[in-house]
Amino acid sequence: MTQKAFQEYYPDEFNYCYGCGQLNEHGLQIKSFWDGDETVCIFQPRPYHTSIPGYVYGGLIASLIDCHSTGSAAAAVYRATGRAMDTKPALRFLTASLHVDYLRPTPIDSPLEVRARIKEIKGRKVVVESTLSAHGEVCARGEVVAVQIPERWKPK
Amino acid sequence: MTQKAFQEYYPDEFNYCYGCGQLNEHGLQIKSFWDGDETVCIFQPRPYHTSIPGYVYGGLIASLIDCHSTGSAAAAVYRATGRAMDTKPALRFLTASLHVDYLRPTPIDSPLEVRARIKEIKGRKVVVESTLSAHGEVCARGEVVAVQIPERWKPK
Repeated sequence: MTQKAFQEYYPDEFNYCYGCGQLNEHGLQIKSFWDGDETVCIFQPRPYHTSIPGYVYGGLIASLIDCHSTGSAAAAVYRATGRAMDTKPALRFLTASLHVDYLRPTPIDSPLEVRARIKEIKGRKVVVESTLSAHGEVCARGEVVAVQIPERWKPK
Repeated sequence: MTQKAFQEYYPDEFNYCYGCGQLNEHGLQIKSFWDGDETVCIFQPRPYHTSIPGYVYGGLIASLIDCHSTGSAAAAVYRATGRAMDTKPALRFLTASLHVDYLRPTPIDSPLEVRARIKEIKGRKVVVESTLSAHGEVCARGEVVAVQIPERWKPK
Protein backbone atom coordinates (compact mmCIF):
# COMPACT_ATOMS: atom_id res chain seq x y z
CA MET A 1 0.00 0.00 0.00
CA THR A 2 1.37 3.38 -0.93
CA GLN A 3 1.60 5.86 1.94
CA LYS A 4 -0.67 8.89 1.54
CA ALA A 5 0.82 12.35 2.01
CA PHE A 6 -0.13 14.29 5.15
CA GLN A 7 -1.71 16.94 2.95
CA GLU A 8 -4.03 14.42 1.33
CA TYR A 9 -5.76 14.11 4.70
CA TYR A 10 -6.45 17.86 5.02
CA PRO A 11 -10.16 18.64 4.92
CA ASP A 12 -11.12 20.26 1.60
CA GLU A 13 -11.84 23.68 3.15
CA PHE A 14 -8.30 23.75 4.58
CA ASN A 15 -6.63 22.36 1.45
CA TYR A 16 -6.22 25.49 -0.71
CA CYS A 17 -2.88 26.75 0.67
CA TYR A 18 -0.55 27.91 -2.11
CA GLY A 19 2.29 25.96 -0.56
CA CYS A 20 0.65 22.70 0.44
CA GLY A 21 -2.99 22.69 -0.62
CA GLN A 22 -3.74 19.79 -2.90
CA LEU A 23 -6.69 21.76 -4.33
CA ASN A 24 -4.71 24.93 -5.25
CA GLU A 25 -4.01 24.43 -8.93
CA HIS A 26 -1.61 27.40 -9.03
CA GLY A 27 0.35 26.29 -5.98
CA LEU A 28 3.31 24.12 -5.07
CA GLN A 29 1.20 21.17 -3.83
CA ILE A 30 4.00 19.78 -1.66
CA LYS A 31 3.65 16.30 -0.21
CA SER A 32 5.05 15.21 3.16
CA PHE A 33 5.55 11.71 4.56
CA TRP A 34 6.89 9.93 7.61
CA ASP A 35 10.35 8.38 7.34
CA GLY A 36 10.90 6.78 10.73
CA ASP A 37 10.85 9.55 13.32
CA GLU A 38 11.49 12.20 10.70
CA THR A 39 9.25 13.63 8.04
CA VAL A 40 10.37 14.22 4.49
CA CYS A 41 9.22 16.25 1.50
CA ILE A 42 10.85 16.23 -1.92
CA PHE A 43 10.23 19.18 -4.23
CA GLN A 44 11.64 19.90 -7.67
CA PRO A 45 11.97 23.67 -8.09
CA ARG A 46 10.86 25.08 -11.42
CA PRO A 47 13.31 27.03 -13.57
CA TYR A 48 11.66 30.35 -12.66
CA HIS A 49 12.08 29.73 -8.89
CA THR A 50 15.46 31.38 -9.23
CA SER A 51 17.25 34.00 -7.14
CA ILE A 52 20.64 34.51 -8.73
CA PRO A 53 20.54 32.42 -11.94
CA GLY A 54 21.35 28.80 -11.08
CA TYR A 55 20.10 29.03 -7.50
CA VAL A 56 16.76 28.82 -5.69
CA TYR A 57 15.16 32.00 -4.31
CA GLY A 58 14.88 32.19 -0.55
CA GLY A 59 11.12 32.63 -0.50
CA LEU A 60 10.60 29.16 -1.98
CA ILE A 61 12.91 27.66 0.63
CA ALA A 62 10.96 29.46 3.36
CA SER A 63 7.66 28.25 1.86
CA LEU A 64 8.77 24.61 1.71
CA ILE A 65 10.06 24.69 5.27
CA ASP A 66 6.92 26.45 6.47
CA CYS A 67 4.33 24.17 4.86
CA HIS A 68 6.25 20.95 5.45
CA SER A 69 6.58 21.89 9.11
CA THR A 70 2.90 22.66 9.69
CA GLY A 71 2.04 19.37 7.98
CA SER A 72 4.57 17.58 10.14
CA ALA A 73 3.11 19.20 13.26
CA ALA A 74 -0.32 17.79 12.44
CA ALA A 75 1.10 14.35 11.67
CA ALA A 76 3.04 14.37 14.93
CA VAL A 77 -0.02 15.15 17.03
CA TYR A 78 -2.01 12.41 15.33
CA ARG A 79 0.83 10.01 16.08
CA ALA A 80 1.36 11.23 19.66
CA THR A 81 -2.31 10.80 20.45
CA GLY A 82 -2.59 7.42 18.75
CA ARG A 83 -5.04 8.67 16.14
CA ALA A 84 -5.17 7.75 12.46
CA MET A 85 -4.88 10.77 10.14
CA ASP A 86 -8.32 10.17 8.65
CA THR A 87 -10.12 10.49 12.00
CA LYS A 88 -12.14 13.54 13.08
CA PRO A 89 -11.79 16.26 14.12
CA ALA A 90 -9.10 17.00 11.52
CA LEU A 91 -5.93 18.63 12.83
CA ARG A 92 -4.56 21.63 10.90
CA PHE A 93 -1.81 23.99 11.99
CA LEU A 94 -0.87 27.59 11.26
CA THR A 95 2.59 29.14 11.57
CA ALA A 96 3.26 31.34 14.57
CA SER A 97 6.92 31.89 13.70
CA LEU A 98 9.37 30.84 11.02
CA HIS A 99 13.14 31.03 11.15
CA VAL A 100 15.43 30.09 8.27
CA ASP A 101 19.23 30.14 8.21
CA TYR A 102 20.50 30.10 4.63
CA LEU A 103 23.82 28.28 4.89
CA ARG A 104 24.83 28.28 1.23
CA PRO A 105 23.28 29.02 -2.17
CA THR A 106 20.80 26.27 -3.06
CA PRO A 107 21.24 24.87 -6.59
CA ILE A 108 18.08 24.84 -8.69
CA ASP A 109 19.05 21.81 -10.78
CA SER A 110 18.28 19.26 -8.06
CA PRO A 111 15.22 18.02 -6.18
CA LEU A 112 15.14 19.67 -2.76
CA GLU A 113 14.71 17.46 0.29
CA VAL A 114 13.19 18.93 3.42
CA ARG A 115 13.58 16.75 6.52
CA ALA A 116 11.91 17.68 9.77
CA ARG A 117 12.05 16.51 13.35
CA ILE A 118 9.56 17.30 16.10
CA LYS A 119 11.40 19.21 18.79
CA GLU A 120 8.48 19.72 21.16
CA ILE A 121 4.73 19.25 21.47
CA LYS A 122 3.24 21.48 24.15
CA GLY A 123 -0.50 21.85 24.24
CA ARG A 124 -1.66 23.24 20.90
CA LYS A 125 1.89 24.28 19.95
CA VAL A 126 4.44 22.15 18.08
CA VAL A 127 8.05 23.17 17.42
CA VAL A 128 9.54 21.66 14.26
CA GLU A 129 13.21 21.72 13.24
CA SER A 130 14.23 21.03 9.66
CA THR A 131 16.96 20.97 7.07
CA LEU A 132 16.69 21.61 3.34
CA SER A 133 19.23 19.76 1.19
CA ALA A 134 20.21 19.62 -2.47
CA HIS A 135 22.60 17.05 -3.93
CA GLY A 136 22.87 15.61 -0.39
CA GLU A 137 24.24 18.83 1.08
CA VAL A 138 22.36 20.85 3.69
CA CYS A 139 21.72 24.33 2.25
CA ALA A 140 19.29 25.75 4.85
CA ARG A 141 18.02 25.07 8.36
CA GLY A 142 14.56 25.95 9.60
CA GLU A 143 12.60 26.19 12.80
CA VAL A 144 8.84 26.62 12.81
CA VAL A 145 6.50 27.14 15.73
CA ALA A 146 3.15 25.78 14.58
CA VAL A 147 -0.15 26.30 16.39
CA GLN A 148 -3.25 24.20 16.00
CA ILE A 149 -6.15 26.03 14.38
CA PRO A 150 -8.99 26.40 16.89
CA GLU A 151 -12.00 24.28 16.01
CA ARG A 152 -14.27 27.34 16.04
CA TRP A 153 -12.11 28.94 13.33
CA LYS A 154 -13.69 28.75 9.93
CA PRO A 155 -12.40 29.82 6.52
CA LYS A 156 -13.87 33.08 5.18
CA MET B 1 10.26 62.97 -11.35
CA THR B 2 8.95 59.60 -10.30
CA GLN B 3 11.20 57.66 -7.91
CA LYS B 4 12.58 54.45 -9.40
CA ALA B 5 12.26 51.24 -7.39
CA PHE B 6 15.42 49.78 -5.83
CA GLN B 7 14.97 46.68 -7.95
CA GLU B 8 15.02 48.72 -11.17
CA TYR B 9 18.69 49.44 -10.43
CA TYR B 10 19.66 45.76 -10.13
CA PRO B 11 22.03 44.67 -12.89
CA ASP B 12 20.24 42.46 -15.43
CA GLU B 13 22.15 39.30 -14.43
CA PHE B 14 20.97 39.77 -10.82
CA ASN B 15 17.40 40.73 -11.74
CA TYR B 16 15.74 37.34 -12.24
CA CYS B 17 14.76 36.60 -8.63
CA TYR B 18 11.24 35.15 -8.39
CA GLY B 19 10.45 37.57 -5.58
CA CYS B 20 12.00 40.81 -6.76
CA GLY B 21 13.53 40.34 -10.21
CA GLN B 22 12.02 42.74 -12.69
CA LEU B 23 12.97 40.33 -15.50
CA ASN B 24 11.27 37.23 -14.02
CA GLU B 25 7.96 37.14 -15.87
CA HIS B 26 6.59 34.40 -13.59
CA GLY B 27 7.59 36.17 -10.38
CA LEU B 28 6.21 38.69 -7.92
CA GLN B 29 8.26 41.63 -9.26
CA ILE B 30 8.00 43.56 -6.01
CA LYS B 31 9.07 47.21 -5.94
CA SER B 32 10.64 48.95 -2.97
CA PHE B 33 11.11 52.66 -2.30
CA TRP B 34 12.43 55.03 0.32
CA ASP B 35 9.89 56.78 2.52
CA GLY B 36 11.99 58.99 4.77
CA ASP B 37 14.20 56.71 6.84
CA GLU B 38 12.01 53.70 6.15
CA THR B 39 11.54 51.67 3.00
CA VAL B 40 8.17 50.58 1.74
CA CYS B 41 6.79 47.97 -0.65
CA ILE B 42 3.13 47.56 -1.56
CA PHE B 43 2.00 44.22 -2.97
CA GLN B 44 -1.47 43.04 -3.92
CA PRO B 45 -1.70 39.29 -3.30
CA ARG B 46 -3.41 37.28 -5.99
CA PRO B 47 -6.48 35.20 -5.14
CA TYR B 48 -4.47 31.96 -5.26
CA HIS B 49 -1.92 33.22 -2.70
CA THR B 50 -4.22 31.82 -0.05
CA SER B 51 -3.56 29.74 3.07
CA ILE B 52 -6.90 29.23 4.74
CA PRO B 53 -9.44 30.72 2.32
CA GLY B 54 -9.60 34.50 2.86
CA TYR B 55 -6.06 34.77 4.18
CA VAL B 56 -2.55 35.01 2.72
CA TYR B 57 -0.21 32.02 2.89
CA GLY B 58 2.85 32.44 5.06
CA GLY B 59 5.36 31.71 2.31
CA LEU B 60 4.27 34.82 0.40
CA ILE B 61 4.66 36.92 3.54
CA ALA B 62 8.14 35.46 4.07
CA SER B 63 9.03 36.13 0.41
CA LEU B 64 7.90 39.77 0.54
CA ILE B 65 9.79 40.40 3.77
CA ASP B 66 12.87 38.63 2.41
CA CYS B 67 13.13 40.39 -0.94
CA HIS B 68 12.08 43.80 0.35
CA SER B 69 14.73 43.52 3.05
CA THR B 70 17.59 42.57 0.73
CA GLY B 71 16.60 45.44 -1.55
CA SER B 72 16.46 47.78 1.43
CA ALA B 73 19.91 46.59 2.55
CA ALA B 74 21.39 47.57 -0.82
CA ALA B 75 19.61 50.93 -0.81
CA ALA B 76 20.84 51.60 2.73
CA VAL B 77 24.47 50.94 1.83
CA TYR B 78 24.23 53.20 -1.22
CA ARG B 79 22.81 55.91 1.02
CA ALA B 80 25.26 55.34 3.87
CA THR B 81 28.22 55.61 1.49
CA GLY B 82 26.83 58.63 -0.36
CA ARG B 83 26.49 56.76 -3.64
CA ALA B 84 23.69 57.04 -6.18
CA MET B 85 21.99 53.72 -6.93
CA ASP B 86 23.00 53.80 -10.58
CA THR B 87 26.74 53.88 -9.80
CA LYS B 88 29.09 50.90 -10.17
CA PRO B 89 29.89 48.43 -8.78
CA ALA B 90 26.25 47.50 -8.22
CA LEU B 91 25.33 46.35 -4.72
CA ARG B 92 23.23 43.19 -4.37
CA PHE B 93 22.48 41.28 -1.19
CA LEU B 94 21.60 37.69 -0.33
CA THR B 95 19.75 36.49 2.76
CA ALA B 96 21.77 34.89 5.54
CA SER B 97 18.80 34.50 7.86
CA LEU B 98 15.10 35.27 7.88
CA HIS B 99 12.79 35.40 10.88
CA VAL B 100 9.05 36.02 10.65
CA ASP B 101 6.56 36.26 13.51
CA TYR B 102 3.01 35.80 12.24
CA LEU B 103 0.94 37.88 14.63
CA ARG B 104 -2.50 37.37 13.12
CA PRO B 105 -4.03 35.93 9.94
CA THR B 106 -3.33 38.31 7.03
CA PRO B 107 -6.42 39.11 4.92
CA ILE B 108 -5.99 38.52 1.19
CA ASP B 109 -8.45 41.22 0.10
CA SER B 110 -6.10 44.14 0.78
CA PRO B 111 -2.79 45.42 -0.59
CA LEU B 112 -0.01 44.37 1.78
CA GLU B 113 2.42 47.03 2.99
CA VAL B 114 5.91 45.98 4.03
CA ARG B 115 7.84 48.68 5.90
CA ALA B 116 11.48 48.19 6.80
CA ARG B 117 14.03 49.97 8.95
CA ILE B 118 17.76 49.45 8.91
CA LYS B 119 18.78 48.18 12.32
CA GLU B 120 22.51 47.84 11.66
CA ILE B 121 25.12 48.06 8.92
CA LYS B 122 28.28 46.20 9.84
CA GLY B 123 30.80 45.56 7.10
CA ARG B 124 29.10 43.54 4.37
CA LYS B 125 26.18 42.65 6.66
CA VAL B 126 22.95 44.60 7.07
CA VAL B 127 20.20 43.78 9.59
CA VAL B 128 16.73 44.85 8.48
CA GLU B 129 13.59 44.91 10.65
CA SER B 130 10.16 45.06 9.07
CA THR B 131 6.43 44.91 9.51
CA LEU B 132 3.81 43.63 7.11
CA SER B 133 0.39 45.27 7.37
CA ALA B 134 -3.04 44.86 5.81
CA HIS B 135 -5.88 47.34 6.28
CA GLY B 136 -3.48 49.38 8.45
CA GLU B 137 -2.99 46.57 10.96
CA VAL B 138 0.37 44.87 11.52
CA CYS B 139 -0.04 41.16 10.71
CA ALA B 140 3.61 40.02 10.73
CA ARG B 141 7.04 41.17 11.85
CA GLY B 142 10.27 40.26 10.12
CA GLU B 143 14.00 40.39 10.67
CA VAL B 144 16.47 39.67 7.89
CA VAL B 145 20.24 39.47 8.01
CA ALA B 146 21.40 40.35 4.50
CA VAL B 147 24.95 39.88 3.22
CA GLN B 148 26.47 41.63 0.25
CA ILE B 149 27.27 39.32 -2.66
CA PRO B 150 31.03 39.16 -3.20
CA GLU B 151 32.09 40.85 -6.42
CA ARG B 152 33.84 37.67 -7.60
CA TRP B 153 30.53 35.80 -7.36
CA LYS B 154 28.92 35.29 -10.73
CA PRO B 155 25.57 33.77 -11.69
CA LYS B 156 25.74 30.23 -13.08
